[in-house]
Amino acid sequence: MLDVCLLGTGGMMPLPYRWLTALMLRYNGSNMLIDCGEGTQITIKQQGWSFKSIDYICFTHYHGDHISGLPGLLLTIGNSNRTEPLTLIGPKGLERVVNGLRVIAPELPFEIKFIELRESLEVIEAGEYVIEAYKVKHNIICYGYNVVINRQGKFDVEKAKENQIPLRLWSKLQKGNTVIDEGVEYTPDMVLGESRKGLKISYCTDSRPVKAIEESVYGADLFICEGMYGEETEETKANAYKHMTFEEAAKLAKNAGVTELWLTHFSPSLVYPKDFLHKARNIFKNSFVGKDRMTKSFKFEDETSEIQ
Amino acid sequence: MLDVCLLGTGGMMPLPYRWLTALMLRYNGSNMLIDCGEGTQITIKQQGWSFKSIDYICFTHYHGDHISGLPGLLLTIGNSNRTEPLTLIGPKGLERVVNGLRVIAPELPFEIKFIELRESLEVIEAGEYVIEAYKVKHNIICYGYNVVINRQGKFDVEKAKENQIPLRLWSKLQKGNTVIDEGVEYTPDMVLGESRKGLKISYCTDSRPVKAIEESVYGADLFICEGMYGEETEETKANAYKHMTFEEAAKLAKNAGVTELWLTHFSPSLVYPKDFLHKARNIFKNSFVGKDRMTKSFKFEDETSEIQ
Repeated sequence: MLDVCLLGTGGMMPLPYRWLTALMLRYNGSNMLIDCGEGTQITIKQQGWSFKSIDYICFTHYHGDHISGLPGLLLTIGNSNRTEPLTLIGPKGLERVVNGLRVIAPELPFEIKFIELRESLEVIEAGEYVIEAYKVKHNIICYGYNVVINRQGKFDVEKAKENQIPLRLWSKLQKGNTVIDEGVEYTPDMVLGESRKGLKISYCTDSRPVKAIEESVYGADLFICEGMYGEETEETKANAYKHMTFEEAAKLAKNAGVTELWLTHFSPSLVYPKDFLHKARNIFKNSFVGKDRMTKSFKFEDETSEIQ
Repeated sequence: MLDVCLLGTGGMMPLPYRWLTALMLRYNGSNMLIDCGEGTQITIKQQGWSFKSIDYICFTHYHGDHISGLPGLLLTIGNSNRTEPLTLIGPKGLERVVNGLRVIAPELPFEIKFIELRESLEVIEAGEYVIEAYKVKHNIICYGYNVVINRQGKFDVEKAKENQIPLRLWSKLQKGNTVIDEGVEYTPDMVLGESRKGLKISYCTDSRPVKAIEESVYGADLFICEGMYGEETEETKANAYKHMTFEEAAKLAKNAGVTELWLTHFSPSLVYPKDFLHKARNIFKNSFVGKDRMTKSFKFEDETSEIQ
């Protein structure tokens, strides 16, 4: 089961009633965060999810509202007695930016590893998460992220027998390991049926609605996308500041054939985003207005999931 | 009238129900801030006081919980269209620390001026505020602050006449200006009665309860002091981490002859500070447990003031 929590829904500055946009994921005891603006650690605390289990933090870009909460979060993770390395992922310049901010968090009980993105599309294996980073179009270099959980096929006893796999290797192969035994290489596909549908969660902010987004988020179970402005009349402003309207986000969702869309990263001037939800739904029916700490658990295949 | 707002009351990390300790003052259209941890801009927004009018920010020290909110606040002040310079005051290293944090707020529409403290006691004239910074005892260099508003004497017509001050100069002298007129120097004391009692607000966190604090905050109208721990049994911990218990803060207040004491900077483990208020009151009757956005307006002399 993959738990997804939209920690906040604001853009530009944190407000008393709206945290800055960030996403937290939880899968098999490993937590992941995308973006970390001022106050993100407070909304995590409200949500009650573990600081200590945060293994990865991805950054879309380095505008303050997406990273200003990092030094405080690092200190709080440190206070949770984490000693395992923490991996940070983000556009070029990551190490320079993080080291600048760490002027107030110089000593931590864990190592920080950096992965700096250089290409338009990068795929990173991060434990059981597969992170796909794709370049979007903002006024500085910015990436969107897909978080994919792959699911292998079922164990197939007949296939294992047919392939004459020694019984003692079945368990290791079932867990996805390749094994060399008495000079012979055995691979997991020798005991597993066809791969089953995994899970794909897509996150995109801040950007204009470019084709690369549609292509990257294709078929996602959930697409979390910025909707900085509610009214389509604000498209000029969206264009100037490199953001999107609700309608533009909904068009992306429709063209990408995603299952559902959560809108987020609302402008501070957009006090009641729900007033404009119909504009998104006219284009893509399964659109929702995000709210702080909106949470959903995704189960594989025919299992059910629900919004909390 | 001087307005004082204790923006938050937490130490170490911001909590969903408790902002980090910071103080805001408002006098004659000029705002001042002492400390700026993560989330400070949100509690200012809740309080509804102006970002644009913040002319001075003082830092006690550079632990994350006292400065991590600075880059976000600078961006928000920038968004308020401030163009006048902003003065930052703090211990040695200020410019280095602020420049590190500004990696995510490199462009601002106003100039930043730095005043780095070097001596054990420094006095800074900051508009109509007189800021007294005094070194305290924490595990890194740390200062407490007094904010003083001086009040000149009343205009004395008889004195002005006795001193044969030309009528055309009365107004300028009353406003505290020295005037040279036809080669003669006239000073404000020639038309003013004796200086009247001003206002003194004292702020001290993080520190052990050292003599320098007592001496510096002497006679304050309000002493805002850390009380990291409620129980006196935690004095060992207070000593180890260089903080204070409620009793230690109350002893300082009593010995310094202040009018009232507000306790703040509570440990995250101190969930109900009011449970320990009696420990402070046994020593210093006029003790109060701070709460977020506790506000008081201080008027000169016989005018009344009240806690909101």
